[in-house]
Formats: sequence, structure tokens, C-alpha cells
Amino acid sequence: MRHVLSALVMNQPGVLAHISGMLASRAFNIDSLAVGETENPEFSRVTFVVNGDDRVLDQVRKQLEKIVTVVRVLDFSGKDFVERDLMLIKVATSGAGRRSEIKELVEVFRGRIVDVSHGHVMIEISGQESKIEAFIDVMRPFGILEIVRTGRIAMLRSDTVTVDSPASGCEAAVT
Amino acid sequence: MRHVLSALVMNQPGVLAHISGMLASRAFNIDSLAVGETENPEFSRVTFVVNGDDRVLDQVRKQLEKIVTVVRVLDFSGKDFVERDLMLIKVATSGAGRRSEIKELVEVFRGRIVDVSHGHVMIEISGQESKIEAFIDVMRPFGILEIVRTGRIAMLRSDTVTVDSPASGCEAAVT
Repeated sequence: MRHVLSALVMNQPGVLAHISGMLASRAFNIDSLAVGETENPEFSRVTFVVNGDDRVLDQVRKQLEKIVTVVRVLDFSGKDFVERDLMLIKVATSGAGRRSEIKELVEVFRGRIVDVSHGHVMIEISGQESKIEAFIDVMRPFGILEIVRTGRIAMLRSDTVTVDSPASGCEAAVT
Repeated sequence: MRHVLSALVMNQPGVLAHISGMLASRAFNIDSLAVGETENPEFSRVTFVVNGDDRVLDQVRKQLEKIVTVVRVLDFSGKDFVERDLMLIKVATSGAGRRSEIKELVEVFRGRIVDVSHGHVMIEISGQESKIEAFIDVMRPFGILEIVRTGRIAMLRSDTVTVDSPASGCEAAVT
């Protein structure tokens, strides 16, 4: 089963090596992983998507929590959350009318053309995985030159913060 | 100095552990890291931002290339490229007129409100780091409840593909 996990970690060298080493030792392949800054420069947030058996994943979550630089881990399974992925995609525009045809599709998918050259356009698009995949499908006939994706990030819909608010954590530290 | 690196890697457990372990052993702190799928399910692309001395980073790049599961590494330094980051941000809306005020700012920054509840709104915004940082600054007075970021991804503006096109690589494999 596919699991989305979020971990608030201390912003130190070696944290990611710890986490990824632990996942590798359990043979969990990471589908995607995103490490981003938070409001508090002392912390980073790691969002990752892994495939694995529920029971083993629970063990992994517990193992992750044992790593001293990992502050908190959350498994999004069964929770109501928003999931987003960002992609840059370079598509060939050789042939008459290709560019305007692509432009129309980009508008339908609410993407943005961020670079245009003689032979290609670069498009930025964000959304749920299904939307990104659908966009890749409609671009395929034009000729996809290159794809770079961020990997998914997730946030709970409720008022509860996903994994300790770095903003409020920062304020608490100041108070 | 800040460096953006992109690596095309084989989609196997342990690859990220190798990369992050190597970076940690050289005491390179990773500012952000994004592992995303490519067109070819056999490969993933890792984009990471690190801070470090130019000469040492060159050694790191060479070390990375020695890892058998790393197909190719590119340092974007001095190159013309597009860089993007994606953020989900939860902002408090308590107080009269707060939501419409936030809505206007979201439109100015070309973000999207993706969830609304009684006490907050969740906003999705993508762009260059400077834009994301500026948006965080304008949201701060409202009360930031939570931030999740993907970490940066990058793509060369030119017709040359960034790190081997997974799409064309796939076709070549089929041929």
C-alpha cells in the first residue's frame, strides 16, 4: 500500500542519510521524497511516499521517531489531506500550430508556460498526482523532451497542524 | 556558495541513502532536496540545493558519479535555468475581512486557495524562491499556521536536456 509520511526534522547534515538509510535497510523503496525549508530555519520538513505493508510501515514510523534528529512523524493514511506535486516539463514544438495547441492544453490544466524557444516550450504545472499524470499523457504526442518533478507534499485539511507548526514553534521559542 | 545539482538515478532502494550519506560525510548540509519520478519508471531524478565551497563541491559531484546507481550529475552553477519550488501554506483567517484580504494577495502572487475552513485557508503557490519568500512575508501578519515546501527543482532553458532525457532514454531502450 502507498503511504504518505511527513517528518519534521532538525536541519543538520546527516538527517536525511539516517532516514533514507533506515528505509533502505527495510527495503522500502521511496516513490518520491521532498525536503523543504520551514518557517523555522532550525527545522526542515521531509515528505515522502513509500510503498509497503501497513504493519511493517508502522514499525518504520516508530524507527524513524527513534532517530534523535527526527522531531515528529505523521502517516497521512486514512486522513483528510491535500496532496500536491510540481512538475517542469519540456515539450517539442516543431510543426505548424503546435505551440498554440500546447498553450490551449496548458490553460485547461491551469499550468504556465515559463520558457519558450525555437524548438520547445517549458511548462510549470502543479496539482494532484492524477492531474500531473493526465497532463503528461496529453503532452506525449507532441514529444516530451524532459521531465523534472518535486515529489509530493501533503497537508491535513483540518485545523490541526500536520507535524508541529514550525511557525508557532518559532513563536514559542521566542516567548 | 549555493549550488543546485540534478542527478538522474536508478529507481532502487538505497540510492538516496548512498547520496545523502556521501553528502553528510563531507558535512554538506542539504538546503532542499526533491526526488521525483521521471517518464521512465526505472529512473528518478534528484534535485538538491547545497551550500559549500566550489572546489569541494566539484569533488562531491565526482564522488556522486562514482555511485553505480547514479547515472549522471549536473551542477547548474553559471547555467541559464528555470528554478521552481512549491509550497502549501495554512494561514489563519480569524477577524473580519481577513479571508478576502488574503484572497486578493493570493491572486497577486498567482497562488490558489485549495482549502477553506472556519478558521483558516490553505494556499498552494509555486515559483522562484524569492517569490515564495515574499509571499511568506505578506502572510506572516495574518498568522501562519503551517508551511510545507517541496524543495527546488530546476531545468535548463536551452534545448539541451538537463540530465539525459528519461523520455528519450525510454525510447532508446525500446528501439
